[in-house]
Amino acid sequence: MASTRAQKKALVFVAEGSEEMETVITGVHVVLLAVGVSSGLVTCSRGVQIAPDAYLGDDSVKIGAFDAVIVPGGAGGAEIIAQNAQVRSVLAEFHAQHKIVGAICAGALAIKAAGIQAKAPRPLHLTSHPSVRDQLENDFLYMDDRVVVDSNLVTSRGPGTTLEFALALVSLLDGNAKAREVAAPMMVGFSV
Amino acid sequence: MASTRAQKKALVFVAEGSEEMETVITGVHVVLLAVGVSSGLVTCSRGVQIAPDAYLGDDSVKIGAFDAVIVPGGAGGAEIIAQNAQVRSVLAEFHAQHKIVGAICAGALAIKAAGIQAKAPRPLHLTSHPSVRDQLENDFLYMDDRVVVDSNLVTSRGPGTTLEFALALVSLLDGNAKAREVAAPMMVGFSV
Ligand SMILES: [Cu+]
Repeated sequence: MASTRAQKKALVFVAEGSEEMETVITGVHVVLLAVGVSSGLVTCSRGVQIAPDAYLGDDSVKIGAFDAVIVPGGAGGAEIIAQNAQVRSVLAEFHAQHKIVGAICAGALAIKAAGIQAKAPRPLHLTSHPSVRDQLENDFLYMDDRVVVDSNLVTSRGPGTTLEFALALVSLLDGNAKAREVAAPMMVGFSV
Repeated sequence: MASTRAQKKALVFVAEGSEEMETVITGVHVVLLAVGVSSGLVTCSRGVQIAPDAYLGDDSVKIGAFDAVIVPGGAGGAEIIAQNAQVRSVLAEFHAQHKIVGAICAGALAIKAAGIQAKAPRPLHLTSHPSVRDQLENDFLYMDDRVVVDSNLVTSRGPGTTLEFALALVSLLDGNAKAREVAAPMMVGFSV
């Protein structure tokens, strides 16, 4: 069942304390880019150690070649990612260039930190983990949906919404047919 | 919100080609034990590299001290795990000792390989990824449910059922109240 086009690629930021399932997000072709460490493994929020594909700052990583950037949650990881100046400018650039910008769970805080709303011509719809809602609801049109797609900004709520988030991203990147093809063998409990 | 008891611990086998989300299974306190490699990283089915907590055969790992053993899917990983003689005897021992044995997706093939049905006093209910159903339906009472609990044998279907599987395991290990406490912040789309 080879598809005729190569699946688009997403860059996922990962830092100490990133949430495991939100980082590995099955369904999207991801490249893991470490933030806040320059070598070795990253310990996720529940203790699983992941080897990043690259480290932020490496010349070898052509960030501009990616089709999407994604910020996973996990409170500690999201904070490190949100506070990184280079990440902030990547997020802002991708959004301005109408490339896909995704954030799940506490990762939505990086969308705020990147100043994406301030640079947008209109109010942006967004969701997040409920625990950080109060840090976002004054800046965005805050929604309680499991996945919120506002043009190229895609946000979602937590580990339990990871696959809905992933499939929304695939749908935007590669189309609905591809999202359905990817979803079929996964045994998701919702329609795509 | 500290609970009064320590959360029980599950040993998850991981091999080259194990499915990412099924391996990190958010919700269960997991220790990752590598099968088929004795050092370094394990590359999962979609390319994410994970550092195991230990390697099968290490003296430091007291397998008997765990409360559950879990086999993730991913066709390649499940095959390596199912073909390992030491894994098979661990699975059979845990099942005979009425400890929790879990398998998701193609991981159910390891349940068959371990001869658990042959040693059981009655037919066992089980599910798996549909793609390996034909290898299991003659040996087990095959079900199409998203999670099947038959006493201490817990099986499930794929990446999309990972959290239902995880919460069924928590419920059996630590009780329904704990499963609900663990589920609450995860934003799962089903009732626990
Ligand atoms: Cu699988």
